[in-house]
Amino acid sequence: MTAIDEGLLSPVTVGHDDVAADRAVLDALVTAEAALARAWAAVGTAPAAAADEISRALGWQGPGRLAQGHSVDVTALAAASVSGGNPVIPLVARLKERVPEAARAWVHRGATSQDILDTAIMLLARAVVDTVKASLAEVDAALVVFARAHRDEVGAARTLTQHAVPTTIGARAATWLHGIRRAVQRLQTVQTPAQLGGAGGTLAAFVQIAGDSGADAAAALPAAFAREAGLDVPAAPWHVTRWPVTELGDALVQAIDAVGKMATDVATLGRTEIGELTESRGGGSSAMPQKQNPVASVLIRSAALRAPQLAATLHLASALAADERPDGAWHAEWPTLRDLLRLAAGATAHAAALVGGLQVHPDAVSRNLGLTRGLIVSERLSLVLAPRIGKDAVARLVAEAAAGADLAVLVAALPEASDLDVHRLLDPAQYTGLAGRLVDAVGDPSPEESQ
Amino acid sequence: MTAIDEGLLSPVTVGHDDVAADRAVLDALVTAEAALARAWAAVGTAPAAAADEISRALGWQGPGRLAQGHSVDVTALAAASVSGGNPVIPLVARLKERVPEAARAWVHRGATSQDILDTAIMLLARAVVDTVKASLAEVDAALVVFARAHRDEVGAARTLTQHAVPTTIGARAATWLHGIRRAVQRLQTVQTPAQLGGAGGTLAAFVQIAGDSGADAAAALPAAFAREAGLDVPAAPWHVTRWPVTELGDALVQAIDAVGKMATDVATLGRTEIGELTESRGGGSSAMPQKQNPVASVLIRSAALRAPQLAATLHLASALAADERPDGAWHAEWPTLRDLLRLAAGATAHAAALVGGLQVHPDAVSRNLGLTRGLIVSERLSLVLAPRIGKDAVARLVAEAAAGADLAVLVAALPEASDLDVHRLLDPAQYTGLAGRLVDAVGDPSPEESQ
Amino acid sequence: MTAIDEGLLSPVTVGHDDVAADRAVLDALVTAEAALARAWAAVGTAPAAAADEISRALGWQGPGRLAQGHSVDVTALAAASVSGGNPVIPLVARLKERVPEAARAWVHRGATSQDILDTAIMLLARAVVDTVKASLAEVDAALVVFARAHRDEVGAARTLTQHAVPTTIGARAATWLHGIRRAVQRLQTVQTPAQLGGAGGTLAAFVQIAGDSGADAAAALPAAFAREAGLDVPAAPWHVTRWPVTELGDALVQAIDAVGKMATDVATLGRTEIGELTESRGGGSSAMPQKQNPVASVLIRSAALRAPQLAATLHLASALAADERPDGAWHAEWPTLRDLLRLAAGATAHAAALVGGLQVHPDAVSRNLGLTRGLIVSERLSLVLAPRIGKDAVARLVAEAAAGADLAVLVAALPEASDLDVHRLLDPAQYTGLAGRLVDAVGDPSPEESQ
Amino acid sequence: MTAIDEGLLSPVTVGHDDVAADRAVLDALVTAEAALARAWAAVGTAPAAAADEISRALGWQGPGRLAQGHSVDVTALAAASVSGGNPVIPLVARLKERVPEAARAWVHRGATSQDILDTAIMLLARAVVDTVKASLAEVDAALVVFARAHRDEVGAARTLTQHAVPTTIGARAATWLHGIRRAVQRLQTVQTPAQLGGAGGTLAAFVQIAGDSGADAAAALPAAFAREAGLDVPAAPWHVTRWPVTELGDALVQAIDAVGKMATDVATLGRTEIGELTESRGGGSSAMPQKQNPVASVLIRSAALRAPQLAATLHLASALAADERPDGAWHAEWPTLRDLLRLAAGATAHAAALVGGLQVHPDAVSRNLGLTRGLIVSERLSLVLAPRIGKDAVARLVAEAAAGADLAVLVAALPEASDLDVHRLLDPAQYTGLAGRLVDAVGDPSPEESQ
Repeated sequence: MTAIDEGLLSPVTVGHDDVAADRAVLDALVTAEAALARAWAAVGTAPAAAADEISRALGWQGPGRLAQGHSVDVTALAAASVSGGNPVIPLVARLKERVPEAARAWVHRGATSQDILDTAIMLLARAVVDTVKASLAEVDAALVVFARAHRDEVGAARTLTQHAVPTTIGARAATWLHGIRRAVQRLQTVQTPAQLGGAGGTLAAFVQIAGDSGADAAAALPAAFAREAGLDVPAAPWHVTRWPVTELGDALVQAIDAVGKMATDVATLGRTEIGELTESRGGGSSAMPQKQNPVASVLIRSAALRAPQLAATLHLASALAADERPDGAWHAEWPTLRDLLRLAAGATAHAAALVGGLQVHPDAVSRNLGLTRGLIVSERLSLVLAPRIGKDAVARLVAEAAAGADLAVLVAALPEASDLDVHRLLDPAQYTGLAGRLVDAVGDPSPEESQ
Repeated sequence: MTAIDEGLLSPVTVGHDDVAADRAVLDALVTAEAALARAWAAVGTAPAAAADEISRALGWQGPGRLAQGHSVDVTALAAASVSGGNPVIPLVARLKERVPEAARAWVHRGATSQDILDTAIMLLARAVVDTVKASLAEVDAALVVFARAHRDEVGAARTLTQHAVPTTIGARAATWLHGIRRAVQRLQTVQTPAQLGGAGGTLAAFVQIAGDSGADAAAALPAAFAREAGLDVPAAPWHVTRWPVTELGDALVQAIDAVGKMATDVATLGRTEIGELTESRGGGSSAMPQKQNPVASVLIRSAALRAPQLAATLHLASALAADERPDGAWHAEWPTLRDLLRLAAGATAHAAALVGGLQVHPDAVSRNLGLTRGLIVSERLSLVLAPRIGKDAVARLVAEAAAGADLAVLVAALPEASDLDVHRLLDPAQYTGLAGRLVDAVGDPSPEESQ
Repeated sequence: MTAIDEGLLSPVTVGHDDVAADRAVLDALVTAEAALARAWAAVGTAPAAAADEISRALGWQGPGRLAQGHSVDVTALAAASVSGGNPVIPLVARLKERVPEAARAWVHRGATSQDILDTAIMLLARAVVDTVKASLAEVDAALVVFARAHRDEVGAARTLTQHAVPTTIGARAATWLHGIRRAVQRLQTVQTPAQLGGAGGTLAAFVQIAGDSGADAAAALPAAFAREAGLDVPAAPWHVTRWPVTELGDALVQAIDAVGKMATDVATLGRTEIGELTESRGGGSSAMPQKQNPVASVLIRSAALRAPQLAATLHLASALAADERPDGAWHAEWPTLRDLLRLAAGATAHAAALVGGLQVHPDAVSRNLGLTRGLIVSERLSLVLAPRIGKDAVARLVAEAAAGADLAVLVAALPEASDLDVHRLLDPAQYTGLAGRLVDAVGDPSPEESQ
Repeated sequence: MTAIDEGLLSPVTVGHDDVAADRAVLDALVTAEAALARAWAAVGTAPAAAADEISRALGWQGPGRLAQGHSVDVTALAAASVSGGNPVIPLVARLKERVPEAARAWVHRGATSQDILDTAIMLLARAVVDTVKASLAEVDAALVVFARAHRDEVGAARTLTQHAVPTTIGARAATWLHGIRRAVQRLQTVQTPAQLGGAGGTLAAFVQIAGDSGADAAAALPAAFAREAGLDVPAAPWHVTRWPVTELGDALVQAIDAVGKMATDVATLGRTEIGELTESRGGGSSAMPQKQNPVASVLIRSAALRAPQLAATLHLASALAADERPDGAWHAEWPTLRDLLRLAAGATAHAAALVGGLQVHPDAVSRNLGLTRGLIVSERLSLVLAPRIGKDAVARLVAEAAAGADLAVLVAALPEASDLDVHRLLDPAQYTGLAGRLVDAVGDPSPEESQ
């Protein structure tokens, strides 16, 4: 469950607390400030005591954990943030008040607002990526069980909305799983580097502050900062090289795509007329009790419709990142990425719940499979009969069946087919190809994910 | 100033209050419920007393105004909204508690959640559209003054980043104004219809409730509802005909485009090297006092980078609005439209502030105009000299000037040009075409906007 | 049928001829050049004879019609266009060769490439908008017939994929029609102005060329140019005020949305299990003759998934139109708008074909309506029975029915319902609300569209 | 240089040949068909002779190379493709005509159109990805040289359009390089798998055809097919698991972002007033010879404005890939991906040309650096002086300088600064932090890229 969430009109998210969301941002900002002071001590420039005092005052909890107990009021800070265009300047003033005089100089020492904001966003991103991966691991585990349980349950494969050939419920689930696992692979490549570049990306202020040993200490600072923050060590400042943001965005969208495909199938296959799948927690309607609304699928699909355009904005911001800090592109990233993080966390949590309770209705699967009265294996009929009676005769035969004739009777009446087991030939279960193997191939839940 | 706003990481907005934003949504939902009860009375089905009691209990303020004083707690409601996927169901329960027993049955009578939500969104949209139009009227008025004041101030027109020909500061402002005014025209065509269709868009529940006079009363209900809510009368239920949402979105984006173009020019022309324009309220930096950051332009441009992709989501939701309520598309609209409303309100408010304080620096304008040492009128030179000395000779002449020679001397030395007033020929102020007329043509501030 | 089309991988379009597409662009460019020469004569600056000779040489066909017979080779021109970044410069050279010496000076006189390109794009846009409106008029006419024919055919309304309440096939078609008609209204507001501003938007070259009467003749030139081209008269140069492009794009997307909604419903309701609607020209599969692929719906939906993001690009280009010609934004418009024009022409042509042959299968409609064994009127049951037996008892009753009991029997057994006509109460045809009126209200085919 | 290209209105591309583009698609389709026949032989089902005859007739050129010499007419095929919705069906008919009777049965054996189309698209994608990587390797090599050459050339770093602190031209180029290299890393992870799943993704037809040894041969077929086509072996059919398309799209956009950032800086820094950088091949204007249009930058930026929205469409198509082949989403991919491939190939080729000829103008760099008369080091002044005279006194001092006073004189007059070397303190070259190290760290051209 994530603390990043939306408001009254944002049903895709799980749990609601907009103030909590702002609080998480605030805690991440404070964490970045604490990590910076600690980094200064780690490279030997700041006294260890100063770093300790700042850590205490700011509620430092250790690398990779958000600061707690700093007592900065999020609402007041938000109000103070508007005029300056970002929350760091008023935050630094508040943090300095909390730090003993002797250590105060080491708060925000040498940093520019972007250093703190970018780092804080990566801290939040790190947490959400972990949440998303955990949800997808749940999806993976549940899908493996589901696919195996329905490995040989034969149903209709549909293309362009029409029954095409047989498949199995398990094979479809295996397909979903490939999308989920690839999304996890992508998430595992996501880098969340700390940002430390100063006003122009040269770290000049840090060099200046470090004094005689300036360049070496300053050169060591970004890695120390990253370690204290529990983030990846940046190869260089990425103030206007925004791939950490776009790769994160792309990976989040890929995760949403993967659960979106699954939700699309569940919503479709749960239609009143199809009825093959239902979410166990279908949202009922008091006035219309016949409805088993696929609520999780609807919310996931809603996220899938929104996410790609948000990622597009991140790419535009990356390409248009003029100068050493751009005139608008950087500011477009924050709220966009925040929305995307929310959507990914919400959609994958819903997916875990959905798959965990997904129910197959064998009667409906079987009833639907028979709807074309045998023609679902017409591709097979063509393969088998065309060499015997010619393509045209096959076409005539299936056309007759499509018009109402009994396909088994028609085939049995063919002299050229007298050696064939007609029942077996027309049995959809005999024409599922590698469906079973495709299920077997998914193996156990992906080890990387279920750690 | 709008109450619709974002959080700690959303500097584009003016003022901050996420709870207030949710409160505005809540007030709009309550308003829609009150309007429905009143509409039932207006068409003669509900007792007038019931409508009055509901109006009182729900804090009805009259058509077009949001309800106040209903005492529903926004945070508790938001928490209760998550499980059901929308806030209407828990809201109705809370509202019924507030209404005397006798009138209670007329709360939410016959409505589906979508009726109330869509109507509430249109109420919010109406308010934001009015806010945006008011901000653009301020922009219009200020731009008219600005364009006239700088009607004849000659500066460089730039194409593909390079000085091309002369123009005037006023003509550029007139160009901005055309974009602003067209955006206002588009906003004036925005319809904000009430929504009333019931569970399937047939109004069947309303007909049922209305009893013997059913169809006529139910048929009159949407218009009555719209009037009570202060919204446009819908031609039909638009539950899955979502042009009211997409046209609104398009118009908001067009407004943001118009101020975005202006902000782009102001940010560019305020660059340290160019220095022709500055925002009066440029955000300073304590550490770098030489900076006059074009804060409003940056925030406007940030909005302009985000808005088009949000509108794209609204269109996707419209095209994919399956059935009588879709499986995801409708849910994608709410947060997207909320963001777009915020961006439009914020960006146009910033634009009004920006234009109100926009300063021209004549020295810089003039210095820049001279940077090509006369070649900014080379198009004119070609037109005048080519008939006299041929195209090739003109090309050679300007090439010499581009390489450093004095253009006036070169021209004066031409026997074929002995009758020309070289100084006048090379004077950028003599080659501004219709720039002055283009300013004069903008006339007074657009009357529609300044009402 | 439009000449604007795509290539081998672009099935949404109707007809294929990419060379013709480039040829249409070329003809439009030539038309713009001819119109400019004619405008110079119309304002009295150029000799009438020069305009006549240019008109002849360039294949002028009159206002609003594309030039023909100019013999410029499109492939060679395209090749020559690459180095200069646009096709106008090499085109002008070719056109001058075709014009007698005496008139040659009046070819492209005073214009900048953008004047010609923007005007040519508006000429193409004008033609496509007319094509789209004609297709939508066909859709309108066919939908009116369809809606009336199925005015009282009762079927299931579905929300969130589940049967909700009854509606009629005609009412659903009426809903589609509202979207179509609004899209036509929007298309009717589309302005396609000529562009004439010169290098910097001041018309300075035109003033210079016009000589003593300069300003007045130049001021009259844009309107004359627009009239000759058969386009709208621009209020001012719109070189960096790009609402003509974005409003066009928005209107095209709205048209695609409207047919996209319809296609989404047709594809869904034609699913093998639902089978209520089929396209008459369903694409068959030789190997799988049971398939009636909804080909038009698929192609329309494909367009609907692409179009909104193309329009977003147009808005970005508008907002980022820096200076007097931007450094990238203008160039992003052409191919994007070309794609959007193609998609709109193709999608609406497919829609006209789709609606023209749309078939309803009453047996399937009726069978589906009965799938919930009466519960599709459970909303009505609640309205009728709750006052008699209380909400909880109603809920228990419908739950029993949902679990398998016979609803009619359960209701008939209620002493409190002894006066009710149970059969009528449970008849879906008695609970269609205003469905019939909603069909009647659509009236005759929209006169504006069927002109 | 790629054969994939656009038309008359598409200046971003390098070279023009739309017929060639369709021809490349055709060749890729034929290649996929040949590879399939060869794969059947490789797994032992088809006679080797049949595969050989088909290879000959279809112009097979070996794995990873496009077929040549099959003599299928692209224009006629395109015309024939429209009715069926895809080009494979008419293509197969034409190919069979070319193949001797005995081998004919092995053409398109068991495949569905999607198998061939998806595989062909991956063949084209593979080629374009290689082209893009080659262009980026050129960019890398040139940027390394450029960064080293300008390692210590001090210029202004700009944030929010304003001079902030000093940096070096080399450090800025190093920043560009980080974006380029990361984009290459991403491209290296791009998988281009063959597609082989049959009508429903189960490979049932392949199993049927393979006969007794069915499942094993069919299970081996996808890998054999991939090897013959020179593509990656798919883990499973990806007919509705579209990450190969979206990951490709994301990687192409990231490449465009990286060159887009560079182009944005070049366009900005080449402005007439700034003049620090110029493209060597700046597009001139005959009428305005003073212009050095940054043509490559403009075209790259144009691509960067379009690409992200195209990738968003690919993601939407992935998430909405319903069933075993979706009702629109799959068809939306082809033209979108084709545009994206073109944009990436064009933009990166332009970038290679741009960087190869990029020129620095040291006079302008130096002149601009002095524009704030020393205040560009005000951050340093604060760091040095605040401990000596207090923050307020520093603020007053820089404010005086900003208002026109001589900064050096002001500092020299401070008694508290008497021990400082004022000239050195105010020298921008002494405040470039780690700029030199950041250049040194880029090392040699990335070996992966320059292979």
